[in-house]
Amino acid sequence: MKIECETIGVVHSPFQQAEGTPIQPARAAGSVGTVELDARYVDGLADLAGFSHIILLTYLHRAKPFSLKVVPYLDTVPRGLFATRAPSRPNPIGLSIVRLLGIAGNVLTVEGLDLLDGTPLLDIKPYFGEFDQPGDVRCGWLEAVREHEVVADNRFAVAGSEESHSSK
Amino acid sequence: MKIECETIGVVHSPFQQAEGTPIQPARAAGSVGTVELDARYVDGLADLAGFSHIILLTYLHRAKPFSLKVVPYLDTVPRGLFATRAPSRPNPIGLSIVRLLGIAGNVLTVEGLDLLDGTPLLDIKPYFGEFDQPGDVRCGWLEAVREHEVVADNRFAVAGSEESHSSK
Repeated sequence: MKIECETIGVVHSPFQQAEGTPIQPARAAGSVGTVELDARYVDGLADLAGFSHIILLTYLHRAKPFSLKVVPYLDTVPRGLFATRAPSRPNPIGLSIVRLLGIAGNVLTVEGLDLLDGTPLLDIKPYFGEFDQPGDVRCGWLEAVREHEVVADNRFAVAGSEESHSSK
Repeated sequence: MKIECETIGVVHSPFQQAEGTPIQPARAAGSVGTVELDARYVDGLADLAGFSHIILLTYLHRAKPFSLKVVPYLDTVPRGLFATRAPSRPNPIGLSIVRLLGIAGNVLTVEGLDLLDGTPLLDIKPYFGEFDQPGDVRCGWLEAVREHEVVADNRFAVAGSEESHSSK
């Protein structure tokens, strides 16, 4: 079944190309940019300023065609696509949890952007700590990578290489 | 700009109508259902079983036309649409964080479903505790409602009324 979405705004970020774009908001501290909501939706921003974090759903317009197995930039082994946050997916919809710094009219200033400049916006949702932070979380292959990072001698080299790619 | 998405599966849940559907996965503990991924994508599920929680992006096919101000079911005051998780939005894309109980072929059994039976699936992402749980979270109007609930005499009546609607 095909579904039509209409973009409701655009992301302005410091990142012009995938190389150098942080792989996740959590790795993008200090990456400040703006989200420009189409002016006709501005009334929908009421009450949002009270939230410290918001969820951006975006259309990852520069994503390449997807493969069902991908090597995540945080790992060296091919993993099932749906066990990764790789941008190339059947529906390349990005999910970014960013810190909301301020709202002026239809423009939101946010920190923690992991998105390319010009990324089309599909939705803004408030981040609800109560609903969006389940307890007792296990993270499969990612935990194994993390353990390896801690003990590896070359962990800083690995970290540097991660930062040079975009793979949310 | 219009964007075309293609559904990649369907959610099977116990909920046939909005009335009685939990408003959020966090309120839906025990609501077990399945996510049936189209068989052609099954190889993308490799490595996902190691994750305790997954994020479902869905098309909320029964959402009504949106308004820019809505009264959330958790509140009594009209709020800006983007400060709520109401299903009726410019792009009615649902975000559900659910517990993954098991995977058999192309069928995922999950707990915490807040979705209507037959909801089309757009994406499955692993829930990364590290990336998806920012610290220092403030939740605007929701916190005020929570404080009120704690002190209110009729909080159980309020809670019961909340449960009878769907408003993620």
